[in-house]
Amino acid sequence: MQPFDTVIRNARVVTAADTFTCDIGIRDGRIVSLGLDLPQGHQEIDAAGRHVTPGGIDSHVHLDQPTGDGSVMADDFFSGTVSAACGGTTTVMPFACQQKGASLRSAVDDYHRRAGNKPVIDYAFHLIVTDPTPQVLREELPALIAEGYTSFKIYMTYDALKLGDREILETLSVARREGAMVMLHAENSDCIAWLTERLVAAGLTAPRYHSASRPMLVEREATHRAIALAELVDVPILIVHVSGREAVEQIRWAQSQGLKVYAETCPQYLFLTADSLGCDDSFEGAKCICSPPPRDAANQQVIWDGLENGSFEIFSSDHAPFRFDGPNGKKAHGEEASFEQIANGIPGVETRMALLWSEGVRSGRITAQSFVALTSTNAAKMYGLYPRKGSIAIGADADLVIWNEGESVHLCNEMLHHNVDYTPYAGMTLSAWPAMTLSRGEVVWDGEPRGEAGRGRFLPCERPAPAQLRRRKTELAL
Amino acid sequence: MQPFDTVIRNARVVTAADTFTCDIGIRDGRIVSLGLDLPQGHQEIDAAGRHVTPGGIDSHVHLDQPTGDGSVMADDFFSGTVSAACGGTTTVMPFACQQKGASLRSAVDDYHRRAGNKPVIDYAFHLIVTDPTPQVLREELPALIAEGYTSFKIYMTYDALKLGDREILETLSVARREGAMVMLHAENSDCIAWLTERLVAAGLTAPRYHSASRPMLVEREATHRAIALAELVDVPILIVHVSGREAVEQIRWAQSQGLKVYAETCPQYLFLTADSLGCDDSFEGAKCICSPPPRDAANQQVIWDGLENGSFEIFSSDHAPFRFDGPNGKKAHGEEASFEQIANGIPGVETRMALLWSEGVRSGRITAQSFVALTSTNAAKMYGLYPRKGSIAIGADADLVIWNEGESVHLCNEMLHHNVDYTPYAGMTLSAWPAMTLSRGEVVWDGEPRGEAGRGRFLPCERPAPAQLRRRKTELAL
Amino acid sequence: MQPFDTVIRNARVVTAADTFTCDIGIRDGRIVSLGLDLPQGHQEIDAAGRHVTPGGIDSHVHLDQPTGDGSVMADDFFSGTVSAACGGTTTVMPFACQQKGASLRSAVDDYHRRAGNKPVIDYAFHLIVTDPTPQVLREELPALIAEGYTSFKIYMTYDALKLGDREILETLSVARREGAMVMLHAENSDCIAWLTERLVAAGLTAPRYHSASRPMLVEREATHRAIALAELVDVPILIVHVSGREAVEQIRWAQSQGLKVYAETCPQYLFLTADSLGCDDSFEGAKCICSPPPRDAANQQVIWDGLENGSFEIFSSDHAPFRFDGPNGKKAHGEEASFEQIANGIPGVETRMALLWSEGVRSGRITAQSFVALTSTNAAKMYGLYPRKGSIAIGADADLVIWNEGESVHLCNEMLHHNVDYTPYAGMTLSAWPAMTLSRGEVVWDGEPRGEAGRGRFLPCERPAPAQLRRRKTELAL
Amino acid sequence: MQPFDTVIRNARVVTAADTFTCDIGIRDGRIVSLGLDLPQGHQEIDAAGRHVTPGGIDSHVHLDQPTGDGSVMADDFFSGTVSAACGGTTTVMPFACQQKGASLRSAVDDYHRRAGNKPVIDYAFHLIVTDPTPQVLREELPALIAEGYTSFKIYMTYDALKLGDREILETLSVARREGAMVMLHAENSDCIAWLTERLVAAGLTAPRYHSASRPMLVEREATHRAIALAELVDVPILIVHVSGREAVEQIRWAQSQGLKVYAETCPQYLFLTADSLGCDDSFEGAKCICSPPPRDAANQQVIWDGLENGSFEIFSSDHAPFRFDGPNGKKAHGEEASFEQIANGIPGVETRMALLWSEGVRSGRITAQSFVALTSTNAAKMYGLYPRKGSIAIGADADLVIWNEGESVHLCNEMLHHNVDYTPYAGMTLSAWPAMTLSRGEVVWDGEPRGEAGRGRFLPCERPAPAQLRRRKTELAL
Repeated sequence: MQPFDTVIRNARVVTAADTFTCDIGIRDGRIVSLGLDLPQGHQEIDAAGRHVTPGGIDSHVHLDQPTGDGSVMADDFFSGTVSAACGGTTTVMPFACQQKGASLRSAVDDYHRRAGNKPVIDYAFHLIVTDPTPQVLREELPALIAEGYTSFKIYMTYDALKLGDREILETLSVARREGAMVMLHAENSDCIAWLTERLVAAGLTAPRYHSASRPMLVEREATHRAIALAELVDVPILIVHVSGREAVEQIRWAQSQGLKVYAETCPQYLFLTADSLGCDDSFEGAKCICSPPPRDAANQQVIWDGLENGSFEIFSSDHAPFRFDGPNGKKAHGEEASFEQIANGIPGVETRMALLWSEGVRSGRITAQSFVALTSTNAAKMYGLYPRKGSIAIGADADLVIWNEGESVHLCNEMLHHNVDYTPYAGMTLSAWPAMTLSRGEVVWDGEPRGEAGRGRFLPCERPAPAQLRRRKTELAL
Repeated sequence: MQPFDTVIRNARVVTAADTFTCDIGIRDGRIVSLGLDLPQGHQEIDAAGRHVTPGGIDSHVHLDQPTGDGSVMADDFFSGTVSAACGGTTTVMPFACQQKGASLRSAVDDYHRRAGNKPVIDYAFHLIVTDPTPQVLREELPALIAEGYTSFKIYMTYDALKLGDREILETLSVARREGAMVMLHAENSDCIAWLTERLVAAGLTAPRYHSASRPMLVEREATHRAIALAELVDVPILIVHVSGREAVEQIRWAQSQGLKVYAETCPQYLFLTADSLGCDDSFEGAKCICSPPPRDAANQQVIWDGLENGSFEIFSSDHAPFRFDGPNGKKAHGEEASFEQIANGIPGVETRMALLWSEGVRSGRITAQSFVALTSTNAAKMYGLYPRKGSIAIGADADLVIWNEGESVHLCNEMLHHNVDYTPYAGMTLSAWPAMTLSRGEVVWDGEPRGEAGRGRFLPCERPAPAQLRRRKTELAL
Repeated sequence: MQPFDTVIRNARVVTAADTFTCDIGIRDGRIVSLGLDLPQGHQEIDAAGRHVTPGGIDSHVHLDQPTGDGSVMADDFFSGTVSAACGGTTTVMPFACQQKGASLRSAVDDYHRRAGNKPVIDYAFHLIVTDPTPQVLREELPALIAEGYTSFKIYMTYDALKLGDREILETLSVARREGAMVMLHAENSDCIAWLTERLVAAGLTAPRYHSASRPMLVEREATHRAIALAELVDVPILIVHVSGREAVEQIRWAQSQGLKVYAETCPQYLFLTADSLGCDDSFEGAKCICSPPPRDAANQQVIWDGLENGSFEIFSSDHAPFRFDGPNGKKAHGEEASFEQIANGIPGVETRMALLWSEGVRSGRITAQSFVALTSTNAAKMYGLYPRKGSIAIGADADLVIWNEGESVHLCNEMLHHNVDYTPYAGMTLSAWPAMTLSRGEVVWDGEPRGEAGRGRFLPCERPAPAQLRRRKTELAL
Repeated sequence: MQPFDTVIRNARVVTAADTFTCDIGIRDGRIVSLGLDLPQGHQEIDAAGRHVTPGGIDSHVHLDQPTGDGSVMADDFFSGTVSAACGGTTTVMPFACQQKGASLRSAVDDYHRRAGNKPVIDYAFHLIVTDPTPQVLREELPALIAEGYTSFKIYMTYDALKLGDREILETLSVARREGAMVMLHAENSDCIAWLTERLVAAGLTAPRYHSASRPMLVEREATHRAIALAELVDVPILIVHVSGREAVEQIRWAQSQGLKVYAETCPQYLFLTADSLGCDDSFEGAKCICSPPPRDAANQQVIWDGLENGSFEIFSSDHAPFRFDGPNGKKAHGEEASFEQIANGIPGVETRMALLWSEGVRSGRITAQSFVALTSTNAAKMYGLYPRKGSIAIGADADLVIWNEGESVHLCNEMLHHNVDYTPYAGMTLSAWPAMTLSRGEVVWDGEPRGEAGRGRFLPCERPAPAQLRRRKTELAL
């Protein structure tokens, strides 16, 4: 048996199923041994009394993504991945977004150029299909899936992104045939436009009216429709960033019918509410503009319940980084801008893991195992990164978080490493934070960011396992 | 007290609430007295031992409506209203259908020309809005509502008719503002198109594949969406021709939330199934092509339950008359035509009342009161014809049906008076049939059709009563 | 045609289906004519511009019923029926309650003695089965049903009254076989006892803890169980005094399955809340102690929605009259008594009709037709008093209310005629009150009570119509 | 690093979260190392290409349990545990059942005597509380929980076992206070008795009428009631042997509300139906008499869906072994016995694991991870055996199954090792069977049973983890 590069001693290892104490032996960036009294490694890390979890997979982040509306994302593949690593995340999955009229391939190529030699942790790409031409459906998409871009997102809202029902059906058909995973942003575009027009006409343009323009029913309707379309094509789907009860009810109904409908939620639906967008017309509320908008305390509880009762598979950040000040962020159109002109999204890649460990696990709302499943393992399986990523298991990449627990952490933006000038969670006090993050066995955070730009590798994704995919038989061979 | 024109003696009067025995005194076409031992009338009709119900209001019929696809409706305002009268219906409500690109007003004008001096019973028009231009929404529609066209239909499917979600919202807004009633044909157009393309590509083009092209989920999705759109605008809607469980579940959910979501069903969902379209590829199945398609026995039971438990307000025929033989009907594109080319619709204006009285009331599934509510009173209220139409009450038009019961009636097309060469219900044996139909006190059916062309009058509709209309308050003045 | 005893002129007649204007001709206590310009009657009553509804049937009242716990009901068959008449009710249905160990027959005999020559309006008896011995089930109950006691109540709580599940099944079986209607008081007895014991042990004995001792789930559970037992026996049931959402959900679920599960609610669930029992430990809260307890505003809305969407058949008072002061009422065990010792029930027979007409019909929450159905017609049908009672129809008893509307009525106990020293609705302002009540054509209220003791007649009940009764077929002949 | 006692080479390790390939190092009966290229062990086992799962925990078995009705269980702690081991189960949890009138302690003592030196694998005891006297509730039960009997079962049916609602509440209160887990057998006793009496009176006594005597609603009602009682006490419960849709709907509803309601199902609800009890009156059907009875194919599908969508935590056998022939088993009262006299239960401890691996995992219905969770890990956590049992993790007992897959296994009773003369699954062809079972590192099955009587150890149970226990806060300190 060859010597270990690194041994982490007396770790309180947590997987999506188990918690046990042992040493972790690492060689060539991979976990090669879990055991008691492992032999000496070149490097020794003492984790006595500390939980060690798989590094987070943030499967819903936006980095350096062109927006087309005058705003510019504040985080590129360097600051975004540094921020992720400092928060315990070791893999990010941003989106290569097709421009309408352009090819998917060109979006992928462009996005690889943007990543360049910047990433400090590993990364994979989701695609965003905005223009499902026959060429895209018959050639590009199957080819890209075969090359390792095995998941793609469909928007049901935003003029520059959305697909109509027929396009969604065609695109879902490709996913079924090729074995890809489809993420859906479920909000009814026409309802939002109709409401927005009325709000603006009534002079109700302050940031907080963003919430009024996208009420829960707008999300419920699109969720129901997405489920129906997927049921028709007989293909699994994953509804992203679910915000509250009405959508959860649709999803649980579908799951009860035996449909493969997965769901994701995000910290903003646990820790923010519509009031976070302001109780007056202050522009400050722009900081929390994201879609769907945060709801209220009762809906937060429904999301917490869903995290523990199996309604959700994935807890991601939906990191969409725009600076509050300056010409490219929330104020790109000035402080008098109407809510619908304000860049949509909030930062969160660095805070996601600690928020859920502190307020979920340590507060007794969810188990440590659920934490691991929701922040890492399930995403790895859903998007074809498993078993390389997503667990503490023999053969897996040594992507690990060693936790510091029990001390009060007062959240403020100064402690974060993203390139955004605020965090929506400023002022919260947490009881945990990553003490150390390892990526393929290398320390990338130990109180200081340690990862070099370019050390992160691109991860081609496998197709999700059959268990995540097709389910029922159709009567007709459609 | 002036003498009566007509006295109906010893009638077993049925209203939507009551059953009682009395004489009915009629003067000037109206019911002016209900009582025991009324004085002699000029005309005396003996109804001893017979149920007398309000004449039927068939609030969903298509007569002489241009189709735009090469087929021609077999019934015009003469044959259609004769057929209606012979089946116990005294008011029909066909549709003045806007052509895309043309005005609503021109559709109404054209439709009045088509009615001309043909109708033998009274009639009102629904509108069909297919092109909600600003001009239509701001001027034509409000003006027409004010003139007595207080209900309109929106299609969510059929390329020539359907509106998108945004158009539906705009049109619903007019209904809310003007106090009109909106009928919705709820099927997801894109799903049908996608399925149809695949079925046709697979060579599955026989009439029976019409059912496969419009599965229940297609109706469920559109029903959910229609409810959500109406909830957003906060306006009542009426979902027409509901076919089975999945749609009923959506509707009852909405009603449970306090939403004003009304529903209609039709005989085809009680007495036909998908098998009526054929168990092989025979063209005979074309006779039962209608949309949504009939489902199965379990769904029939759900519809029966809904008729009695208050889920439905209205039982209409959706009479859409196409001949089976000949160049203009079901065979317009030949017997080799693919299912989606076949004229969509079935006849039923004459059989509706007897089917429900025989199989509903006499079989003990629903009460006689429910029969009256479903076939007449509710439609009168919903569409602004009440109290002139829809009941046996002082002041109401003397539109009445005197029933013949207890003898077996073997249904065949030869006994019917429509201009269609088949009835989908041929072969059924009923236990009731109208013995006599009176329209404004005149006998229009007594075993023979008696009404003269042109005696029927156009009925401008009132707005529905407030109880049928707006319900909740919106927070914002939208 | 004989002359009329009384003619009510230009009445705005409301039935459960219709509203129309006409004269009402009355002879021998019955309605014999509805018409325009009726001939002169001996007595003429001008109702121009006034609504005239069927007299109320209060199918859930307690009068002079032995309680067995030291309290005494304040209203006997005189004060109770006077109060009813003054509030627009023309028929009451109190309960002949079997004593455990005694016969049902003796309860009926005793109750007839109590009624004696006191009633000023007509009345029928429900039975309460508390001891379903073989003798009761095989002989007494069938015999009493045959004699006109065709409905009986089963309690699932109260030690002196409750039946176990097996007893309920046996008793339901008799109802099925004999065609009787069963009313169920659905609360889980053991849960209440368990909670009460804990509350008392914790010193939480003030009146307001009555609510805490009977939370919504206690009612939901028993409602579900009652439905399951009735489903097993395949017999209709009527759940009385439903208080809120969780019970309504069970009932609507059952109705959706096609089960004949009817429901009743009461004014206390529309106009009182748990707060009516006090926000501190004051004994004043005892005035509103009733079971199930009133809930909260959200539950009130669910009840309102249920009144209009068809979930409920009946709106009764559950009048259970105990004086607040004095030795026999709420203070029978002193002001320090624990909540569970306080006489359970509130008065309401006189206020029921006006509360619902004012706050329901005039406020636009329900239609006038729904009002009539809920307060009169449905009860008549459900309990076998129809068509003699429950409608304004030819041949029916001339039990009528002529309404005074549009003036503010400030509710206070002094205006009421019951023998209770408070009303829970004191302080409300209504917009309607009965101007005149007629019972079999005689004025019993016209601003003053006019009915003589003893003029009220006992009404033997028919079995409910088949439509209200058996529904499905059982597979086995059980 | 000390040498390993045993090394399993190249195992395809499956946990409830992961699958990975490695060697498993075992020392002193525990797993001490998972890694690549582990050093030589005293014993070497080649598992190349084979799945290795945690040994099964069958948390619902009946062994040598007194029945009180003349029947005798065929399996004692020897034959039962041998059979378990041969089927891949390494821990069984039978029931120490209190006799009414006797103490819980004496039941435990007696059961230890029955176990004696017979078990070949490890075992823990659930208690069955049949007589919750104050003594039992205040002293015995808390003391036994403290000693390691941390779960107990409550029956809602069977006269000798059942508790009333009040007793259930009292007993649940102890569970809440002491941190124990409660299992509930949810069927409504009175409904079963009522139906049985009618069936027997009608002469419908053949085995197949067992199903008719316990229809789905009987289980649904008790499930709803159990949930309500637990909600009131605010304590988690586990509904055992759930058989179909109506019960699953109640459970998922509860889980949606955030209630901690767990559920278990068994092979009989996946592989048997009511038809397994016979389509005629043959006594052969007695072989499949168990409660709740198996339902139908549609219900089987609901159970499959529930296994994968997270509705169920546990998949147990409910092994209740009675011989078909002979004087003590199914024929104890002769072949003419009425269904309700026939010993209730079916064998299954040996077939459970292979049935689910073959038909669940290998057929693609559930993942291998779900298999491990359902058959082992979740039971260990739920009942306080974790982390010693239930996983392949460092420090855990080396309880393992090495699978043989891909060859057809024709199930027949001759291949099984229980003392029952039939298996209900005879005739099925499976695609997997345990090749080897290890219990604490010792081979107890490798094609032959290898375990010695008495090697199995009694396992005192910890309390379940907090995450499995209390959830919400009560408003009152009850």
